Amino acid sequence: MRNIKLTIEYDGKRYSGWQRLGTDDKTIQGKIEAILSQMTGKTIEITGSGRTDSGTHARGQVANFKTKSQMSTNEILVFLNRYLPRDIIIKHVEEMPERFHARYNATGKKYSYYVWNDPIPSVFERNHSFHFPQALDIDKMEKACQKLTGIHDFIGFSALKKSKKTTVRTIQEITIRQEGKMLHFTFIGNGFLYKMVRIMMGTILDIGIGKLSLSAIDEIFENKMRQNAGETVPAQGLFLDEVYYQ
Amino acid sequence: MRNIKLTIEYDGKRYSGWQRLGTDDKTIQGKIEAILSQMTGKTIEITGSGRTDSGTHARGQVANFKTKSQMSTNEILVFLNRYLPRDIIIKHVEEMPERFHARYNATGKKYSYYVWNDPIPSVFERNHSFHFPQALDIDKMEKACQKLTGIHDFIGFSALKKSKKTTVRTIQEITIRQEGKMLHFTFIGNGFLYKMVRIMMGTILDIGIGKLSLSAIDEIFENKMRQNAGETVPAQGLFLDEVYYQ
Repeated sequence: MRNIKLTIEYDGKRYSGWQRLGTDDKTIQGKIEAILSQMTGKTIEITGSGRTDSGTHARGQVANFKTKSQMSTNEILVFLNRYLPRDIIIKHVEEMPERFHARYNATGKKYSYYVWNDPIPSVFERNHSFHFPQALDIDKMEKACQKLTGIHDFIGFSALKKSKKTTVRTIQEITIRQEGKMLHFTFIGNGFLYKMVRIMMGTILDIGIGKLSLSAIDEIFENKMRQNAGETVPAQGLFLDEVYYQ
Repeated sequence: MRNIKLTIEYDGKRYSGWQRLGTDDKTIQGKIEAILSQMTGKTIEITGSGRTDSGTHARGQVANFKTKSQMSTNEILVFLNRYLPRDIIIKHVEEMPERFHARYNATGKKYSYYVWNDPIPSVFERNHSFHFPQALDIDKMEKACQKLTGIHDFIGFSALKKSKKTTVRTIQEITIRQEGKMLHFTFIGNGFLYKMVRIMMGTILDIGIGKLSLSAIDEIFENKMRQNAGETVPAQGLFLDEVYYQ
C-alpha cells in the first residue's frame, strides 16, 4: 500500500468542521474522502493531523491515506482540485514512508488568529477575522503572550471538562503583529487542547481592554478554572497555518 | 440644503455594479439610496464619483447627496451601517460645501488589481484576485507599466466604440508589488475610460507571458485598435481604492 500525504487549504465558513460525521458531507474530511473514493473506486479514509472546529480555516492542514492506486502524486493533486469545491484546495501531494501518520507524527502546530481592531468593520476581512471595535493595549497583550508561553497545564484554557490524558502542553511562541487595523496573532506549540487557541485569544483580548489583569493567567494555570478565562472568540478568525513533523 | 459626502467600501461580488438600474436594487447605489430614503423619509439620490462595473470592489468610492435632515454625520454613519448589507460599509461621512460634486470635482483615482500568480489557486484570495497560473516576466511588465504612464489617447485601451468627448488621459503612476504569490498592481491617473484598467491589465499580462511585445503599446496608442490590446481581465481582481479631490 502506498501512503499519501495531502497538504490542504480550506475556508471553513460553509463547513461543520474537519471531522466526518456519519454520512454528512458538510465536513472537509467527508468532501475529500468522497472524491478520493470516486477516484480510486475504493472506500478511502483519510487521517487528519487533528480536527478543526466548524468555521475554522486552514492554510496547511495535513492528512494521509493508504491506497493501491498507481496514479502519480501530481495526477492525484489535479484530480482532487478539479472535483473539490472551490473553498477546499490541495496545495501539495507527497508519497511518504508506510509508517507516516498525520496525527501521531505531528510534533507541533502553528495557528493564526486575526482581530480587526477598528470601530468600522471591514468588508473584505469580515469572513476571516474577528471584528473587535474597542481600543487594545498592545503592550499588555504582549506581556500576556509571554506569560502563556512555556510548559503549562492548559486545561483551564480549554473546553475540556476533564481529561484522562495529560493536558500539559508546550507553547513555544505567541506573537502579535500589527498590519494596519488588523492584529495578527500567531501561536506555535507542540499541541493544543480543544478550543485552546480561541480561549487563550479571548483572555488576551480581555487583558487588552483591562477587563482581566495579567495575574489572571497565573491564577488559571494554578486553579485550572475555565470560567476565569476569557470567552471563546469566534472560529472565523482562526487559521491552522502549519503542522510540523519530526 | 446640506451636502453630505460618503466614503464607501464594498465587495462587488453580489452586485450588478455601482449604478442604479431603474427599480433594480442589486446595485450599490440603489442599496444606499433605499436606506437614505428610509432614514430621511424623502427620496434621496446619490451621485457617485463614477461607475464601477459588476463585480468590481471598492475601498474608497465617494458619493454625495443633498438633504434637509438634521442628523449628525455620525448618526448618518451609524444608521447606514446598521441597515446596509454586510458587504457594503460606509467608512466616513463628512459635511461639504454646497458646491461639492463627487463626480465633477474628482481630480484623479487610484485603482488596485490583484493577480494570484501560482499554479495552485488560493482559497482565501479567490474572490478578490485573478488566478493566473503562467510564469510572468516582472521586468518586462514593469517596462510596460512605464510605457503606459503619461499623457495618451487611451481609446485603444477602452471598451468605448467611439467618443465625442476627449479620450486623452494622464496616468501618473503604475506600480507592481510582489506580496508572496500575489502581484499587486496600482494605477493612479486623472481619469479612466470604460474598462480601461482591466484592458491595460490584460495587455500587461500578455506582455508578461511574451504573447505581446512591448512595442504593441506604442502601436495601440498610434492606431487606436482595441483588438490589438490584451483581453479584459475579470472584475473580481479590481478595487477602486481612492478618489482624489482638488
